[in-house]
Amino acid sequence: MNTVRQATVRLVDEQGAGGKVREIFDDIKRTKNIDFVPNFWRALATHPDQLELVWRQLKALMHPEAAGRQSKLDAKTRETIALAVSATNGCAYCVNSHTAALKKLGVDGETLGEILAIAGLFNQTNALADGYQIEPDVLPPLE
Amino acid sequence: MNTVRQATVRLVDEQGAGGKVREIFDDIKRTKNIDFVPNFWRALATHPDQLELVWRQLKALMHPEAAGRQSKLDAKTRETIALAVSATNGCAYCVNSHTAALKKLGVDGETLGEILAIAGLFNQTNALADGYQIEPDVLPPLE
Amino acid sequence: MNTVRQATVRLVDEQGAGGKVREIFDDIKRTKNIDFVPNFWRALATHPDQLELVWRQLKALMHPEAAGRQSKLDAKTRETIALAVSATNGCAYCVNSHTAALKKLGVDGETLGEILAIAGLFNQTNALADGYQIEPDVLPPLE
Amino acid sequence: MNTVRQATVRLVDEQGAGGKVREIFDDIKRTKNIDFVPNFWRALATHPDQLELVWRQLKALMHPEAAGRQSKLDAKTRETIALAVSATNGCAYCVNSHTAALKKLGVDGETLGEILAIAGLFNQTNALADGYQIEPDVLPPLE
Amino acid sequence: MNTVRQATVRLVDEQGAGGKVREIFDDIKRTKNIDFVPNFWRALATHPDQLELVWRQLKALMHPEAAGRQSKLDAKTRETIALAVSATNGCAYCVNSHTAALKKLGVDGETLGEILAIAGLFNQTNALADGYQIEPDVLPPLE
Amino acid sequence: MNTVRQATVRLVDEQGAGGKVREIFDDIKRTKNIDFVPNFWRALATHPDQLELVWRQLKALMHPEAAGRQSKLDAKTRETIALAVSATNGCAYCVNSHTAALKKLGVDGETLGEILAIAGLFNQTNALADGYQIEPDVLPPLE
Repeated sequence: MNTVRQATVRLVDEQGAGGKVREIFDDIKRTKNIDFVPNFWRALATHPDQLELVWRQLKALMHPEAAGRQSKLDAKTRETIALAVSATNGCAYCVNSHTAALKKLGVDGETLGEILAIAGLFNQTNALADGYQIEPDVLPPLE
Repeated sequence: MNTVRQATVRLVDEQGAGGKVREIFDDIKRTKNIDFVPNFWRALATHPDQLELVWRQLKALMHPEAAGRQSKLDAKTRETIALAVSATNGCAYCVNSHTAALKKLGVDGETLGEILAIAGLFNQTNALADGYQIEPDVLPPLE
Repeated sequence: MNTVRQATVRLVDEQGAGGKVREIFDDIKRTKNIDFVPNFWRALATHPDQLELVWRQLKALMHPEAAGRQSKLDAKTRETIALAVSATNGCAYCVNSHTAALKKLGVDGETLGEILAIAGLFNQTNALADGYQIEPDVLPPLE
Repeated sequence: MNTVRQATVRLVDEQGAGGKVREIFDDIKRTKNIDFVPNFWRALATHPDQLELVWRQLKALMHPEAAGRQSKLDAKTRETIALAVSATNGCAYCVNSHTAALKKLGVDGETLGEILAIAGLFNQTNALADGYQIEPDVLPPLE
Repeated sequence: MNTVRQATVRLVDEQGAGGKVREIFDDIKRTKNIDFVPNFWRALATHPDQLELVWRQLKALMHPEAAGRQSKLDAKTRETIALAVSATNGCAYCVNSHTAALKKLGVDGETLGEILAIAGLFNQTNALADGYQIEPDVLPPLE
Repeated sequence: MNTVRQATVRLVDEQGAGGKVREIFDDIKRTKNIDFVPNFWRALATHPDQLELVWRQLKALMHPEAAGRQSKLDAKTRETIALAVSATNGCAYCVNSHTAALKKLGVDGETLGEILAIAGLFNQTNALADGYQIEPDVLPPLE
């Protein structure tokens, strides 16, 4: 019998990875300054093109300096967005991973609590606004 | 040019409906005690089998007396669930329709506000529980 | 190594809680008539202001008599909304907790099944209404 | 006939508001430095207790200085979370409102685009992580 | 003490099922060509009417030939929709079950990866379109 | 006064686009065989890097032949996933756009109805499985 809840695909092992996958695995570890390849990327690696597309996008948006881009947001803000989205969607893997990333960036438990408090608040107001069928305010122009 | 945001399908007209669709349209109006067929059912009617499957299920769950079933919940509670789910999903058509149904059942604006307040609150706590990665409590057995 | 999926923060222990947190913990147990503090509140307690804000709101909406308010909904209906929202969002902790609360209020398995059936049904119709791009019905005025 | 999609409740007019509602309306305008009361608050005002609970929480979390609290996050980061959550939930009113708030805080279109790009990216990775049934990484302890 | 995260209801045992439930259990095994009754149906069986309603609909839509219906979609496409929806909602049971169904239909890991990649992509673009408040294109008529 | 619900950013005009944006706009029209640039891409174009990242990914996954890739899924199945995800998320722009794409691929109203029926069904079963806290089946190994 299989054990339950194993990943859909056999995760690609770092040792077994070759070619494009190996290069991307190395880039992930270097860019993120970690010494292992997270399970997420090991799963995507079963589909090397998809691994490349998602990594390229994530690198560009979350590690802009490594991708040769400028960002208007700092690293903590970027990971904060990631955590807020993941908590909203209830994605356990993602919450776990972005919480770890924020801690690594020096974010303490109190700040994590504040991020989640704000994410929680707006999940509430979103349901209220949709539930009350509230029309957008007519706002004065900003520019 | 088409107008934007029209329904995906041409809504089936009450006048033009025949056979199974006509019977179900009549049953919808009789069961819900309304004198028109809501757009939702007119869209499903383009797919008569689907119209029948969804209506049969909705009639059984939401109009149990008409379906010859017993329900442990009263009509207001059942519509309350419908509104809470629809506000959570942000479905504009559905919020509009279930709000109207609740008003027709005599629910006033203050009670509607309370339903939405509670639905909003738990959208908040859901995001908090998922965001904090909180494990279920070990509860004493109930029976 | 950490174990996986532990909560983001170290849950505040009832014994170790002092000041505002201790008072709220006592109020939670008294108001909910339980002899332990659920993990959810122990996590929020790492952020005492947030604990207070969420508890104040939950107490006002879910335990109105204890908060000196009147409610138009009874306790079962209020917990029913909580379960319907939690099932819709797929929040495991929350489903677990509100199911236990409903059982404690005397709701049997058959009624729980009916609540979930109705919540399930409207998740279906929500996707259908949005998927078919159905415009709201023009409804006659209710008042 | 009613017009379609009007709000569920008759929005409370600033002129007609009295007592607690009037005080909160004034506090909203003062705290947010705006000269009108947004429709969201005018709808909640039909339920003055709920208006107070939601406003108290939103003021504490989003306008901490006015609430006499300290925040570890700056105002732009807080509104960024609000926009990311609202885009994830697809709440039109909320996206509209938080976009306006960010613009008022001096956030330009390029930065808004970056916020949305990151929110979009993690909605993608959330679906991938859940879809692949990926187990959390076993992470080394951080403290 | 209960173990945590047990199902809400005691799953109905195949051996203990009688009458309508037994018939539907047999139909599920025959129609799906499996030799056990999945936990999902064993839970619904605590509510025989609901078991019947959901099974009738699922049989009609997912096993049309057995239900005497014609389908315009083939079995792989139908299960593909099921997986895409389940990944989007982050329903662990459902992702697990529909992944197994797709594998049984001969879908390999690469194709599963492609399905998830596309589902992931559109969760991204959905958040972007909602986040940017993009109005529908005015499209030329198709017919 | 602004009109309500305008897009967050000023959509980039085809005429005004230059450089990388112009090239991508041309590639979008050529690859999709349409004679206008949809509003979605015109909004992303305010952020050319993001336009490039999202288009590259969408082109690779949805127009693999144009991207020099092989796909295991046909074009209708790919757009079917897009519609199912968009209906699940209730993204109006996206539902509109993918419905038009499916019609252009020759998909008739009956088939669209079947896609939505199946997407609707699994939104129902997702809520039921999560709501009942159903554990995954222990499945026999497939390989």
